[in-house]
Amino acid sequence: MSELKNDLFLRACRKEPVERTPIWIMRQAGRYLSEYKKVREKADFITMCQTPELAAEVTIQPVDVIGVDAAIIFSDILVVPQAMGMEFQMIESKGPVFPHPIRNEEDARNLKDIDPAKDLKYVLDAVSLAKKELDGRVPLIGFAGSPWTLLTYMVEGKGSKNFSYVKKMVYNNPQLAHRVLDKLAVAVAKYLSAKIDAGANAVQIFDTWGGVLSPSDFEEFSLRYITKVISEIKRNREPVIVFSKGVHHSLDKLSNTGADVIGLDWTMDLGEVRKKIGGKVALQGNLDPTVLYAGENKIREEAVKVISSYGEGSGHIFNLGHGILPDVDQEKAKALVQIVKEESKAVHRRDAKTQRF
Amino acid sequence: MSELKNDLFLRACRKEPVERTPIWIMRQAGRYLSEYKKVREKADFITMCQTPELAAEVTIQPVDVIGVDAAIIFSDILVVPQAMGMEFQMIESKGPVFPHPIRNEEDARNLKDIDPAKDLKYVLDAVSLAKKELDGRVPLIGFAGSPWTLLTYMVEGKGSKNFSYVKKMVYNNPQLAHRVLDKLAVAVAKYLSAKIDAGANAVQIFDTWGGVLSPSDFEEFSLRYITKVISEIKRNREPVIVFSKGVHHSLDKLSNTGADVIGLDWTMDLGEVRKKIGGKVALQGNLDPTVLYAGENKIREEAVKVISSYGEGSGHIFNLGHGILPDVDQEKAKALVQIVKEESKAVHRRDAKTQRF
Repeated sequence: MSELKNDLFLRACRKEPVERTPIWIMRQAGRYLSEYKKVREKADFITMCQTPELAAEVTIQPVDVIGVDAAIIFSDILVVPQAMGMEFQMIESKGPVFPHPIRNEEDARNLKDIDPAKDLKYVLDAVSLAKKELDGRVPLIGFAGSPWTLLTYMVEGKGSKNFSYVKKMVYNNPQLAHRVLDKLAVAVAKYLSAKIDAGANAVQIFDTWGGVLSPSDFEEFSLRYITKVISEIKRNREPVIVFSKGVHHSLDKLSNTGADVIGLDWTMDLGEVRKKIGGKVALQGNLDPTVLYAGENKIREEAVKVISSYGEGSGHIFNLGHGILPDVDQEKAKALVQIVKEESKAVHRRDAKTQRF
Repeated sequence: MSELKNDLFLRACRKEPVERTPIWIMRQAGRYLSEYKKVREKADFITMCQTPELAAEVTIQPVDVIGVDAAIIFSDILVVPQAMGMEFQMIESKGPVFPHPIRNEEDARNLKDIDPAKDLKYVLDAVSLAKKELDGRVPLIGFAGSPWTLLTYMVEGKGSKNFSYVKKMVYNNPQLAHRVLDKLAVAVAKYLSAKIDAGANAVQIFDTWGGVLSPSDFEEFSLRYITKVISEIKRNREPVIVFSKGVHHSLDKLSNTGADVIGLDWTMDLGEVRKKIGGKVALQGNLDPTVLYAGENKIREEAVKVISSYGEGSGHIFNLGHGILPDVDQEKAKALVQIVKEESKAVHRRDAKTQRF
């Protein structure tokens, strides 16, 4: 990674010494940024995903505008089921929609194996282009949905409150659920491997809906396939991050999946989780995203709480506990990045010393 | 409580010996029941709440139809803000709506103190009537929303995903939030006291949205007011149950609020929680509500897991980990009740012996 001018993020993922805590923000390439909205005026969401020049442009914006320590490729987790043959729409008022959800064996049979180099070439091109345009300023993160999270969207067909259809599948036809999850795990592993091959310095798996399962169902229907994905990713030293929202009950199991970093939502106590699994993995998170509605003093107070909760030493990547909200003032996001850069130096003084001598 | 023919629920709340685990189901008087839907055809939701005869009728249905060990008065948590002067609508496709939400000092000033005997007479009449019609078959539960959960609806004005407005209030005008929460705590305590006075044998506080707060915000904006409510309820031996969804981080604190029973959602491990706080309180829960989409064998398997997880001895009230879903087959709910009645005897053999001799 010697070509990177700022490799703080990668060092923290590997728990190597850092001078300060690196920060990036989930959904940092998004609607809260005026620069993003300007691009979005010219093209709809799916077109932006599918046009490498536009995707690369908005990927780099938060590095320029708010000063984060890593870029994450602009895309959507649902490009994978789309590549597997599912028609996919993004409806402004409703969010993502699959007009023909997977409800039975026949629906599932239509899902094809993917070849990322062909079926998701546009994402890989965006990765290469963003990597080139970043020119080593910060690392680039690739991402995918976890098999379970992809399955929920594919079966529900749209956003859901109770996840009735996918839970019915899980309880009444678990074999079918397992077959699709296995297929998704293979696809996700191939996809993330291809992103690393195209230049991603790290990858994150979003298990956004892991938390709607009971602990034993989580283990059977989500954790197992996250583990499979991680074991099949082709990588050198690129870290794998798993963000599993609401999965307070299985952090120890998550730390044994082969992941290098576990992302935490804002209901977790970072210090306590560090005591439990910090010996095995680095931790990412976990400021309540709504704290960015507050004034700068409150943002500083809460950011310092997060930094202090993790405490001294490396292995912490600052982030929100979920994606940044679209109605946040971008100046607040900028202020947060600056605050973390300033305030986190104190917890790394010994690391800095170790490095200096 | 000698007038009750079945007081298993109350004994379990007090951790007294029982012959089997009692069961009731959150939202048991609801749309999954054909008998309920018949009543609902004649009157809209708010009219049903406001008509003691109808409210009492649907309150008793689950006792007759599915055989639960407790009735819970049919009502809505939002009758309290309505009684405080807020216009309240129930829109079929959108859920509850307050057309004039509380967003500033002036809005808040319009909230009046309530006198339950006048402002919520229709609920108290429904309680008395249901109590009379139950004729001692099972205990009757009264309920209210927690101050925090009521505040979220009053500030958001409708269901919310990110709770942006109430979080903005909490971070930018915490004094206002505290003032309204305090007023709500007083109102809720009076209301629950009046329900007990009208005949409720126990009360439950629903903190449905406690889990959207970080642990420290939960303590400041929800827990504090739950504690205040409980300390101000006028009661004799009537147990208080607190159900706080998603609050995995503060179970120990919840067990110190003065509550007799803590309700758990389905992401918690009942056995582990018992180890932590079972010495102080009884526990209620926590089957994943979507398990009722499964076949009877799977329902039995999962119900037995919940019973075994709590283990031997009293202090467990079986329930779902959240409300029953409206599209569940009522025969499944009936089957669950039967299963719990049969399968839980094994964990109470020693209790039964103690009682017999």
